Amino acid sequence: DTTLYGRLNVSMDYVDDGVDSSHQLASNSSRLGVRGSEDLGMGLRGVFQIEAALQGNEGRAFDGSNLTARNTYVGLAGGFGELRIGKHDTPYKLSTLRLNFFADTLGDMHHVAAQTGNNANNFYRRNDNTLIYMTPDFGGMQFMASYTTDLVDDTPNNNPDANDTNAFSLAGVFSQGPMYVAVAYEQNNNFGVGGEDQQAWKVGGTYQIADLTLAAMYENIDDGQDDRDAFHLGARYSFGQAYLMASYTFADELTTDNGAKMYALGGGFNFSRRTGIYAVYALADNDDAGRYGLTGSGKGKGVGAVVAGEDVSGFQIGVTHNF
Amino acid sequence: DTTLYGRLNVSMDYVDDGVDSSHQLASNSSRLGVRGSEDLGMGLRGVFQIEAALQGNEGRAFDGSNLTARNTYVGLAGGFGELRIGKHDTPYKLSTLRLNFFADTLGDMHHVAAQTGNNANNFYRRNDNTLIYMTPDFGGMQFMASYTTDLVDDTPNNNPDANDTNAFSLAGVFSQGPMYVAVAYEQNNNFGVGGEDQQAWKVGGTYQIADLTLAAMYENIDDGQDDRDAFHLGARYSFGQAYLMASYTFADELTTDNGAKMYALGGGFNFSRRTGIYAVYALADNDDAGRYGLTGSGKGKGVGAVVAGEDVSGFQIGVTHNF
Amino acid sequence: DTTLYGRLNVSMDYVDDGVDSSHQLASNSSRLGVRGSEDLGMGLRGVFQIEAALQGNEGRAFDGSNLTARNTYVGLAGGFGELRIGKHDTPYKLSTLRLNFFADTLGDMHHVAAQTGNNANNFYRRNDNTLIYMTPDFGGMQFMASYTTDLVDDTPNNNPDANDTNAFSLAGVFSQGPMYVAVAYEQNNNFGVGGEDQQAWKVGGTYQIADLTLAAMYENIDDGQDDRDAFHLGARYSFGQAYLMASYTFADELTTDNGAKMYALGGGFNFSRRTGIYAVYALADNDDAGRYGLTGSGKGKGVGAVVAGEDVSGFQIGVTHNF
Repeated sequence: DTTLYGRLNVSMDYVDDGVDSSHQLASNSSRLGVRGSEDLGMGLRGVFQIEAALQGNEGRAFDGSNLTARNTYVGLAGGFGELRIGKHDTPYKLSTLRLNFFADTLGDMHHVAAQTGNNANNFYRRNDNTLIYMTPDFGGMQFMASYTTDLVDDTPNNNPDANDTNAFSLAGVFSQGPMYVAVAYEQNNNFGVGGEDQQAWKVGGTYQIADLTLAAMYENIDDGQDDRDAFHLGARYSFGQAYLMASYTFADELTTDNGAKMYALGGGFNFSRRTGIYAVYALADNDDAGRYGLTGSGKGKGVGAVVAGEDVSGFQIGVTHNF
Repeated sequence: DTTLYGRLNVSMDYVDDGVDSSHQLASNSSRLGVRGSEDLGMGLRGVFQIEAALQGNEGRAFDGSNLTARNTYVGLAGGFGELRIGKHDTPYKLSTLRLNFFADTLGDMHHVAAQTGNNANNFYRRNDNTLIYMTPDFGGMQFMASYTTDLVDDTPNNNPDANDTNAFSLAGVFSQGPMYVAVAYEQNNNFGVGGEDQQAWKVGGTYQIADLTLAAMYENIDDGQDDRDAFHLGARYSFGQAYLMASYTFADELTTDNGAKMYALGGGFNFSRRTGIYAVYALADNDDAGRYGLTGSGKGKGVGAVVAGEDVSGFQIGVTHNF
Repeated sequence: DTTLYGRLNVSMDYVDDGVDSSHQLASNSSRLGVRGSEDLGMGLRGVFQIEAALQGNEGRAFDGSNLTARNTYVGLAGGFGELRIGKHDTPYKLSTLRLNFFADTLGDMHHVAAQTGNNANNFYRRNDNTLIYMTPDFGGMQFMASYTTDLVDDTPNNNPDANDTNAFSLAGVFSQGPMYVAVAYEQNNNFGVGGEDQQAWKVGGTYQIADLTLAAMYENIDDGQDDRDAFHLGARYSFGQAYLMASYTFADELTTDNGAKMYALGGGFNFSRRTGIYAVYALADNDDAGRYGLTGSGKGKGVGAVVAGEDVSGFQIGVTHNF
């Protein structure tokens, strides 16, 4: 029971960082993986996944790929839930994926949420050196917890002390009828600029009304020196094989006047369950000292903020194909 | 409909650059890929390919492989032809592949053709950041066009200006009975030593007479400062599972006395459609200031010209296996 | 006849190098491969393998993977035996794999055997640029020989002279009833600190008595300046799906007082032929000037000796899953 699977998501982008603009071709979280499972008896299953990123580097769409760049683990599943060991998205990240209608596009909510404005991307993480445990589904409710031995290097004689840069992440999600709710907390120790512990928590969810799905989220990130609030609102409307979507993401200032608002508009058409095309427009409207860009998520290349306070925007058309 | 495929081509080479010699073991355009397609209805198909290079690095036969080093794209095919987006060989390169009997060996015609004598390898290209369109077959005739957003880096704020180092490539091919003809043009902007636009055009073809196939090509490359002519002649004779081949490639001087002639002789035996062995001898006879080597194609390692005017030669025996 | 296969071996380790300690998460010789063969008629088969390492880097469990990091070759098999060309374990390494009960764990015998005490890991090698020939099985007896064109770089104009850093390796193995015996010799030319030729030879084997398997090995390594002896003793006892094992490895001093003893204890449980869990404890007890660590084998991360004479130890629990 071994499956070779993958996804290609390639787009042509027109981006402007307020100083310069370009049209760029990008691979957006494209991947190639192998996964499988084995029935071990006693209600247990062995599971594994190896997932490569088909990603770009330094202005190229496909380059520097890494065979284990994405979630790569071996694990054990059973009535107790599932335990995985390897490299994995954190529960914090996993819990709100379904709120992120613009995932892997210029409008990805994590360009403003999950970050502290200098593209530090501290709370949208796939961590190596990680154990993750997921409970079974309890009537729509599920809990997840992960522990990372070290975010940088977990061998002895590192600086700071071995395992000091460890991390943990917790999430609870609840799904019932049209409603989905997630609460999550994450702590990255010794990971701030001055070696502070960083932490974040968020609560969010989606609600479906016929063909319309609404999303909302609140998040607080404390980088060890200051903290900031962020809000996200999203809507997605499906009609047949087509869909339209819009979102608004706001981050308050962390220090003086360095917040931002991001607006995103998009739509797409799915030829089949496997293949679709889409178009997205997004704008990050920075405060005077804000440096949020359209980057820091699964969006390839994206566009960063090179000068504080400048608006950063982009339009992309893309194609996705799963196999 | 997903296929795992590949090709191993490994050889033992005896090479001499006029200064030193060695026997070296090389992987020659070995590859591993995944490709597939999906019927989307309305006469359309979604297509994709991910192709890794199993290549060497710094004197090793297999090292530094890259999961997306070769043609990697997602595309749409239908009655209109086929549009691919990602990383791809240019039409200029694709149009004359079948003239190149010594492909991926020491005698590859692109060691002299496609280049300007310092192994710059400017016109035998697989470009990242590329859109390519191929028309349907019109009674044996087909046209191809590609556009590359930037040969180096297509994100904003690069030097030179974003998208200034773009490129395009055009080709028309015609196939009828024993005859194949190709005409191609390619332009790499801002890509010369002093930032000049570089351009090349060529016309070539093959003609089959029973078991004998003849090839001929003329090419002109302008590196933005000077231009040079090149000619290629080749012959391939098959008898049962065996074959013999010979070729002559000539490049005129670009500046004073820096042209070269390359001679290649070879033969092989195919055990099956998938597996074969081969032997090739090649010699680059450089003019006094010429620096052409047996390198710059899909041949792994090869042998460069370390001193101008020296002859560069090599002999290889190899095995190919497709799966 | 192409097979996608692999193995994940991931463990949580508690390691101490005498100066500092940490708990670390490691991938231990995890791999992903493709292999196949083709019947060529005349009693011949074409064979190939491409094997990637799913390995860590700089304190990360999964990073910097290389698609051809492990045995990757194309070959021809038949009544004459098998000839492979590419990247391959040496006969010296292959001959005693089955003595190494603690393979790819903290207790791997190659942390002390195969080495000269500064983790130079000179005689537990997978060599690129290699031809390897294996005879057929002659009534339980088999011989293997490999030649490596250059351990570093086999292209011309290298330093030392091209092909001067070549290597060869020879082994004979004999298997009958409960007994397995191996004799091996390996020479790495120009590979010593001062450019000396290095050489090693060893003799070892296993003997099975019901559920108990015993292993013993003697090895002599000459690094071109001095030589050292090493001994290894191991025992493995199986009961049903579980097993226990212990080993002792001793290396004499190479120069003054720089030998070491390594003790290893372990056990495991196999849920199935494909999936198991295990635990291992190992200790390298260094002489005053000894710098042996628990590293230099297929064990990921491991733990090196940062200060001469310090004991280095570790405990790990892990899971293995083959597919």
